[in-house]
Amino acid sequence: MNFGMVSKSLGILLICEAIAMVPTLIVAILYKGSDILAFVYTILIIFTSGLLIASVKPKSKNIYARDGFAIVAIGWVLISFFGSLPFVFSGVIPSFVDSFFEASSGFTTTGASILTEIEGLPKGILFWRSFTHWVGGMGVLVMTLAILPSLGAGSLQIMKAESPGPNPGKLVPKVGHTAKILYGIYLLITIIEVIALKIAGMSLYDALIHTFGTVGTGGFSNKNLSVGAYNNTSYEIIITFFMLVCGTNFALYYQALKGNIKEIFKDQEFKFYVRMVFIAITLITLNIYGSVFENLSEALRRSSFQVASIITTTGYATADFNQWPVFSKIILLSLMFFGGCAGSTGGSIKHIRILLFYRAMKRQLLKIIHPGAVYTVKFNGKSIDEDALMDILSFLFMYIFVLLIAVIIISLDGKDMMTSISAVVATIGNIGPGFGMVGPVGNYAAFSHMSKMVLSLCMIIGRLEIYPILLLTIPSFWKKVNI
Amino acid sequence: MNFGMVSKSLGILLICEAIAMVPTLIVAILYKGSDILAFVYTILIIFTSGLLIASVKPKSKNIYARDGFAIVAIGWVLISFFGSLPFVFSGVIPSFVDSFFEASSGFTTTGASILTEIEGLPKGILFWRSFTHWVGGMGVLVMTLAILPSLGAGSLQIMKAESPGPNPGKLVPKVGHTAKILYGIYLLITIIEVIALKIAGMSLYDALIHTFGTVGTGGFSNKNLSVGAYNNTSYEIIITFFMLVCGTNFALYYQALKGNIKEIFKDQEFKFYVRMVFIAITLITLNIYGSVFENLSEALRRSSFQVASIITTTGYATADFNQWPVFSKIILLSLMFFGGCAGSTGGSIKHIRILLFYRAMKRQLLKIIHPGAVYTVKFNGKSIDEDALMDILSFLFMYIFVLLIAVIIISLDGKDMMTSISAVVATIGNIGPGFGMVGPVGNYAAFSHMSKMVLSLCMIIGRLEIYPILLLTIPSFWKKVNI
Repeated sequence: MNFGMVSKSLGILLICEAIAMVPTLIVAILYKGSDILAFVYTILIIFTSGLLIASVKPKSKNIYARDGFAIVAIGWVLISFFGSLPFVFSGVIPSFVDSFFEASSGFTTTGASILTEIEGLPKGILFWRSFTHWVGGMGVLVMTLAILPSLGAGSLQIMKAESPGPNPGKLVPKVGHTAKILYGIYLLITIIEVIALKIAGMSLYDALIHTFGTVGTGGFSNKNLSVGAYNNTSYEIIITFFMLVCGTNFALYYQALKGNIKEIFKDQEFKFYVRMVFIAITLITLNIYGSVFENLSEALRRSSFQVASIITTTGYATADFNQWPVFSKIILLSLMFFGGCAGSTGGSIKHIRILLFYRAMKRQLLKIIHPGAVYTVKFNGKSIDEDALMDILSFLFMYIFVLLIAVIIISLDGKDMMTSISAVVATIGNIGPGFGMVGPVGNYAAFSHMSKMVLSLCMIIGRLEIYPILLLTIPSFWKKVNI
Repeated sequence: MNFGMVSKSLGILLICEAIAMVPTLIVAILYKGSDILAFVYTILIIFTSGLLIASVKPKSKNIYARDGFAIVAIGWVLISFFGSLPFVFSGVIPSFVDSFFEASSGFTTTGASILTEIEGLPKGILFWRSFTHWVGGMGVLVMTLAILPSLGAGSLQIMKAESPGPNPGKLVPKVGHTAKILYGIYLLITIIEVIALKIAGMSLYDALIHTFGTVGTGGFSNKNLSVGAYNNTSYEIIITFFMLVCGTNFALYYQALKGNIKEIFKDQEFKFYVRMVFIAITLITLNIYGSVFENLSEALRRSSFQVASIITTTGYATADFNQWPVFSKIILLSLMFFGGCAGSTGGSIKHIRILLFYRAMKRQLLKIIHPGAVYTVKFNGKSIDEDALMDILSFLFMYIFVLLIAVIIISLDGKDMMTSISAVVATIGNIGPGFGMVGPVGNYAAFSHMSKMVLSLCMIIGRLEIYPILLLTIPSFWKKVNI
């Protein structure tokens, strides 16, 4: 482990966080809120801490896979830790555990909240809460499309041409190039959505809040009833569209910008994603039409919004789906494991992995029928390397393993089974709302401090595709000598 | 596909089933029940059908993997179909769908029931219902320890020395030898348990019923309150012990008989199984002591029985665990996926697979830390072949895939979420009771015909380790020409 470079990188990350808080400070000043000082103090603390940590002089500038994972894992925890300070300082969320939960939920673009009453809170605080989604979403894109593949852990990298290979020590310049392209696309989508919502009649402030929540596939709103509070079809259509857009692999947009628009529709993951969205909307619409909504168009509107919100792991709601028939709830629960495409801001398992699980399963069955034949699992026409496939298949158990341990700990709180299980599913998958007490009109306030810490950790573990945080628990990860 | 040999084998299987029904006929005659004619008719029908199907003259005597899978899959369905006839003919279960559910539940050693009132039923019918567990348990042992490995699908075969390799065409003699040893051990355990229960004070009839349910890890009782009806500590200790015995790999008993008793305690799966039993009993005892049971020894007794019952997928109950705290329920729900050891009569995923999932996960993590090093996943000191590991890892998705499809269909019935989910978990895992309406004091009567058929299929799919039934759905499985 190159502790020097890890420390330096984390310091730079904190300095960036301090700078990222400046727009929020401006918002707080504009609204003359009671939260101005909270941001001033926090910015000073983060900036100073960042400078101190970054001042370490590393002996070598080489960054290996382990160092990269350490930066990503510790980085997300640190940023959540410091990002929670405005909540504490402003007095909005006096408990540090609660504040950390809210900040982790923001940066991991989960959208799970411990707040029971949102609408009266200072505008700066609510802006920061949603802005963390935006920052987190950008972080995810850079991590999954630029950093992880370059660490050789990119079984999912599809942006092959752009992402550098496992070339230790020469990481930074190539990552920087990829990152810049991604920032550009992300910013463009953000601006378009804000303008669209503004034109549809939303105030600039609300448009910004909901755009941050959408493009980061986060889900924090400044309304107690989430997007449902507006009961506005235009807003819902715009947000549904952009949630789906941000659940798509951003590498495909880069291809499109280069002129290969057809590539998007040839991509097997994208096709699978569109098919799942379509099937889920159809099934839920048919199920809630008549039983919950008298009107077919309303059933279609509600189901489209909810499917887009859950499959992309955003978590916005326009209806209390907790009250829908069990069939619809089971479909939504299943979608919580799909989680958009790889290279999107969505969380959870991702469509490409599920597609590859399915193909690997089919391959094993065909092998039994034709023991002599050789089958490879393919994606977009290319054979998947057996090592990479092993990696992808192990991921499923890794996901379930973390989920199970967390559910067992959470269940000590004595909440009902569906609440306990879905709270973990919704946090590890970075979705936000679950079922039971943590449903779309509920929140996470009633959990114990212990559970809130575990759920915060789940959000971070899920956001980082499980690996990085699990790696931290292996003793040899911390050894100084590289083998 | 060698249709001739498949047909012949199925015919022989049916003739065996007819013979297996004779002891039950004797019981019915002894008790002078109203069910005598039902058994006479059924035996005649099954015997005649068997003779007809077996009379086909196969062109070749070679059995390949596909044929073996077809025999196993179609065989289990056929046996359940014909085994359900006594329920229909006697008028005890007038609906054929219900009867098929009950018979599948018996032969797959699940123990899920659609009966709401058991104690008044004819003795012959109840004997047959439990005897199907015994027959099914024996079938499972022969299938997993003799037939499947010889078909080259034995990623889990541990009885290497005894099981023949993938040697098509020469299957029968070697399978026959292994099967005989297994029958012997199985019969021995059965006799010892009956004697033990008899000495403890149980009537011979009840002792037989509960022994069939225990050694087959089935769970049918002739009491409405299951084993809890006796409220007898000796019975509970005996049944707990034998459930755990039958959740152990029978190949280890064969080793022990050959004098290698130490082998049992060296086996990593057995050690993992014992550890899980111990941990689960401790956690649940601590959780229910004080909150449900005032007395520590009672808490320990109840929790030991329930853990043994669920982890071995037996499904007997001495308490309504549905009323226990959520923590205990989550532990029990988790145990439903463990399901005893490979080569036992238990169902579900099996400890060895979970151990190998865990080791594969750890290997992938270590690979990231030390990209240069080569790691293999080991079991009992031997490296697991990468192909076999791929098979085992794919199994997890296969299991979840079937589970999910089934839950979605079941949820159309509109039962609550935990009932819908746990009904499928408890049937695909061959456990029996789940949570909610299908809890230990509930039953499966309230489900629709459609759901009951799906759940029956789940029991059979789960019992056959998923593969065989899925294979039947692949078109090329049915092609005549072997590649």
